[in-house]
Amino acid sequence: MISSIKIALAQLDVSPGHPDINIQKMLAEITRAKSRGMDLIIFSEMVVSGYLLGDEWENDCFVKDLVGYNEDLRRASAGLAVIWGNVYVDFDKKGEDGRPRKYNAAYIAQDGHWVSNGVFEGHTYKTLLPKYREFDDERHFFSMIKLAQEKGKNLADLLQPFPLVIKGQTVLLGAIMCEDMWCDDYSVNPTKILVDNGAEIILNLSCSPWTWRKNNKRHRVVKSLLEKSPVPFLYCNNVGTQNNGKNIFLFDGHSTVYHSDGTLMAVTQDYAEETLEVVIGPKSSPSIATPVPSDRQDLVELLVGLKYGLAHFFRSLPTLQAVIGLSGGIDSALVAYLLAQVLGPENVYAVNMPSKFNSDVTRNSAALLAQNLGLNYAVFPIQPAVDLTLKELSEIRFVRQDSSAKQVSLTISPLTIENIQARDRSSRVLAALASCLGVVFVNNSNKTETALGYCTLYGDVDGAISPLGDIYKNEIYELARFINQYEAQEVIPSSILEVVPSAELSLEQDVTQGKGDPILYPYHDRLIRSFVEFRFDPQNILELYQLGTLEKELKIAPGLVSKYFPSHQAFIQDLEHKWTLFKINIFKRIQAPPIIAVSRRAFGFDLREAQNGVYFTREYQKLKKQLLSSN
Amino acid sequence: MISSIKIALAQLDVSPGHPDINIQKMLAEITRAKSRGMDLIIFSEMVVSGYLLGDEWENDCFVKDLVGYNEDLRRASAGLAVIWGNVYVDFDKKGEDGRPRKYNAAYIAQDGHWVSNGVFEGHTYKTLLPKYREFDDERHFFSMIKLAQEKGKNLADLLQPFPLVIKGQTVLLGAIMCEDMWCDDYSVNPTKILVDNGAEIILNLSCSPWTWRKNNKRHRVVKSLLEKSPVPFLYCNNVGTQNNGKNIFLFDGHSTVYHSDGTLMAVTQDYAEETLEVVIGPKSSPSIATPVPSDRQDLVELLVGLKYGLAHFFRSLPTLQAVIGLSGGIDSALVAYLLAQVLGPENVYAVNMPSKFNSDVTRNSAALLAQNLGLNYAVFPIQPAVDLTLKELSEIRFVRQDSSAKQVSLTISPLTIENIQARDRSSRVLAALASCLGVVFVNNSNKTETALGYCTLYGDVDGAISPLGDIYKNEIYELARFINQYEAQEVIPSSILEVVPSAELSLEQDVTQGKGDPILYPYHDRLIRSFVEFRFDPQNILELYQLGTLEKELKIAPGLVSKYFPSHQAFIQDLEHKWTLFKINIFKRIQAPPIIAVSRRAFGFDLREAQNGVYFTREYQKLKKQLLSSN
Repeated sequence: MISSIKIALAQLDVSPGHPDINIQKMLAEITRAKSRGMDLIIFSEMVVSGYLLGDEWENDCFVKDLVGYNEDLRRASAGLAVIWGNVYVDFDKKGEDGRPRKYNAAYIAQDGHWVSNGVFEGHTYKTLLPKYREFDDERHFFSMIKLAQEKGKNLADLLQPFPLVIKGQTVLLGAIMCEDMWCDDYSVNPTKILVDNGAEIILNLSCSPWTWRKNNKRHRVVKSLLEKSPVPFLYCNNVGTQNNGKNIFLFDGHSTVYHSDGTLMAVTQDYAEETLEVVIGPKSSPSIATPVPSDRQDLVELLVGLKYGLAHFFRSLPTLQAVIGLSGGIDSALVAYLLAQVLGPENVYAVNMPSKFNSDVTRNSAALLAQNLGLNYAVFPIQPAVDLTLKELSEIRFVRQDSSAKQVSLTISPLTIENIQARDRSSRVLAALASCLGVVFVNNSNKTETALGYCTLYGDVDGAISPLGDIYKNEIYELARFINQYEAQEVIPSSILEVVPSAELSLEQDVTQGKGDPILYPYHDRLIRSFVEFRFDPQNILELYQLGTLEKELKIAPGLVSKYFPSHQAFIQDLEHKWTLFKINIFKRIQAPPIIAVSRRAFGFDLREAQNGVYFTREYQKLKKQLLSSN
Repeated sequence: MISSIKIALAQLDVSPGHPDINIQKMLAEITRAKSRGMDLIIFSEMVVSGYLLGDEWENDCFVKDLVGYNEDLRRASAGLAVIWGNVYVDFDKKGEDGRPRKYNAAYIAQDGHWVSNGVFEGHTYKTLLPKYREFDDERHFFSMIKLAQEKGKNLADLLQPFPLVIKGQTVLLGAIMCEDMWCDDYSVNPTKILVDNGAEIILNLSCSPWTWRKNNKRHRVVKSLLEKSPVPFLYCNNVGTQNNGKNIFLFDGHSTVYHSDGTLMAVTQDYAEETLEVVIGPKSSPSIATPVPSDRQDLVELLVGLKYGLAHFFRSLPTLQAVIGLSGGIDSALVAYLLAQVLGPENVYAVNMPSKFNSDVTRNSAALLAQNLGLNYAVFPIQPAVDLTLKELSEIRFVRQDSSAKQVSLTISPLTIENIQARDRSSRVLAALASCLGVVFVNNSNKTETALGYCTLYGDVDGAISPLGDIYKNEIYELARFINQYEAQEVIPSSILEVVPSAELSLEQDVTQGKGDPILYPYHDRLIRSFVEFRFDPQNILELYQLGTLEKELKIAPGLVSKYFPSHQAFIQDLEHKWTLFKINIFKRIQAPPIIAVSRRAFGFDLREAQNGVYFTREYQKLKKQLLSSN
């Protein structure tokens, strides 16, 4: 390797589907890198196009347009080398969907020319195509593996480093993309192949969504890769958000330069457009410590992520204002705080919509919260409209005109009255207020109630975006308490933190009597996480319950399960009830707004749910029988 | 080959996610086949589990449970041979998602034993994994191709026929699955490989959704396969529906037995549980003619498909009744007819919900339709509730309590008033009626308005299922007219067929003045189809427009485009407006109900739409400039 190579690593805020915007930023970065004497500038995966574009990859004109921008970038490379991610299209060959064959590619140009690696002229392809969670790479792109197979070659023949000539000396760059470094579950390791083929530096162009508590894992994975293949490793990720239609993914960047021993040389600021400048070679920069997040930082990360996601979502709308319902409960309090932070309190219209079931406690809490945050605030009582609806329903008669003219009148159940209130609030009041103000209204659901369907379709399921839909109820309390510490004042009134969580839609949910939601949050939060994130079946739960390790495995406080459920029968009854609610209420999630994804698994395109009702395995049935007979 | 082999081909109505139900049907069929002296019985792909299960494939207990049913089937094979589709799991190996490795497999047992093909004991794997449209095979399953690569073998080494010994003689059966026969876009042809390896009969186990006007294509594809590999070909598909959460796919069965020259030996009835019994060999049954559908049959197929999809959807609910809004327009009339057919008119509650903008024409049409169909009918005027909402909105004042105490009042625009009416009808009245009756209400949207967002979120976007969401407005008229012919009476009143299509939400949409929707259906239907089904970009449209071949390519009546758009400017303005509506209104489709898929591309999981706003390619911009300067 030459004595030193100066590399700029550009972490941009990529606008998915808007190459015109992205290309302008890239060209400006290239110009700046030149002026600062850089030898090479690196951009992230799919930096021209954005990555989570859904089936827009099937729009051939759009894809051709994307490819056209490569020429602009090649020309701009006069005076340095540039590597970037974009789609590659082979119009002469078909992909397995019968459309022009596309690859997720890295392009490399130097001094206005494409750089050849002996196999490809100025580009290489992603080898490992993720197709789990939100990823659909294999749906749209052909892989280097399939190409090797088609050509009857070994993958190692095609994965070659690119020789860059810098100050008369050659350095061999190995370019991989995102999943290529997360190769544990695949049969090949692209990093190792490239280093075995002579690569002196590995560049990983990524478009890798943030997951709460994931960044440290990335450092460990790189360290382990470099143990086998010790070369400097540059990880370039983008910032911004990408919205696949059901989930908003956050990109924190966190681009990192690693020494060949896996220690960190430099790391970007999270969620910032930033260009790292590093020197690779004998004169490279010293190591820095790998940051070890504290518990506090953990919650800061979540808070920062949520604010960033919301801010980006609103940036995509014609308005920077929002309407929100304030019930005086914890979920809406947290959303109100986030909106006030992101949009400014003067741009948030909060409305409390009491019916006769709402207590003074929560009504006062809502008003106090609005005051604390400085929101525009109004009270919009819904009882007159609810009463009108109930009166009209009681008067309506259905008639079959060609039959015995039997009239059918309606029975109005307590549940119907609950749902009428919820729908009145959202689909009547909030939607109309948003329409009058020319803004959107925001959903307040949490992950627990979203999972169990403890919400009303066309009621509190409504909204343009669900900021808390991937956060469990207990985490919401945790975050709210943290905010009061973080702000060093009681932004979220203690009355909201202390009142029993309740929908307040009937006398059965009277908070002044201590009555609230029919959910045992300390247990059910964890149960649902096991269904959603661990992909557990009730059979898994029952097996752990029988073994006596359920609390330990799900991280539930010891003794809680037997406290809640005094008998096997009670435990099983609840388990079957919750599994049934979880499965049946898919119908509400189908019509729910996009959720900001923060966990290991969010409802939406991240977790694809077919509408197939409820099933219990034969093993489950057997185990249940055993337990009940031993009770 | 032996002189003759008696084969039963069982076309079952598969319940996705309910192996307990499916297995009972299979065991009954096996028993019956034995009693009728069959040598072999064939079931369809994934007959044990169902196919479109979303990410339930990640539930390991469920998957183990599915695999467990194979033993029941092996045991049941005493006295004949059985082939069926189910998942195969290799718990010792990982799939590329890090979970236990799964294959989409065919199992084969005879006389209680697994049949070996020298490579696998009693099973083989699907080779080609579709991952376009609604298919996510590659997301969940490992393919025979990847396995061959991992083992360092040729695919042909692994794709071996199974030897069945029947009456002392051996016949070699090649088993493939679904996509394996649709191999044009792949580099391998599993049918050819198997026949080259000695297969004397090819069995295709399919789970292949119905698409309007597709069946004849299947016959052509088989014929072309058999030209290269002339052996008898048995195609076994299931019936039923599978609901992936955003689309309901119809399975018409259409299982077919082909002679080795591609002529038909036998074909099942569509949408029926039916077992074909055929004799393969020298004494095989004679050919029958390939059915050539007439135009009339074309519409019958659509009608039958829609009814079947609706019937199956309701079968999955705890109720066989429905609520529907009847506006007196064509869409709701068609849905009402379908519901009456499927549920019986006594189980349909139709409600007309006039505001002051609704004409006598449409109100009378709604009443007449209800009478014609024999529905339960009521009129539920919404004006009092709309007036109350407008009054409450005009009185509301937002105050920022910690600022200058400036009060914000609201401006109520005509569009706001339109949307209030739509939301009042759906989220207040229909939802409450459904709740009172303990039933669901049905969505009336068509594909044209779904595409353009000519509908109100939490208004007419609502509903448990969208039966017409994959059918363009002109096709709806076509189908409605056909129904009146088919029923040989004016079931759908001519007043509904003749009135101008209109939302009747303002004076601007007064049908008595001939005012209606701002959509030029004969052109825009086709434009949208080009966006959705052909995956066209505005650039494609503008190129065709410039060439003068737009009408021909999109099958628009000659002269219509220049009649609608007297100048290039007018054409371009409309094109950009519609493309913008199409892209922006993704937010409504995100929260829309599941659509019955009938076309080549339905909104939902079939067409995955990211929320990225609007973009026009550079080529488009260039072309536009050219056209406008030449205008």
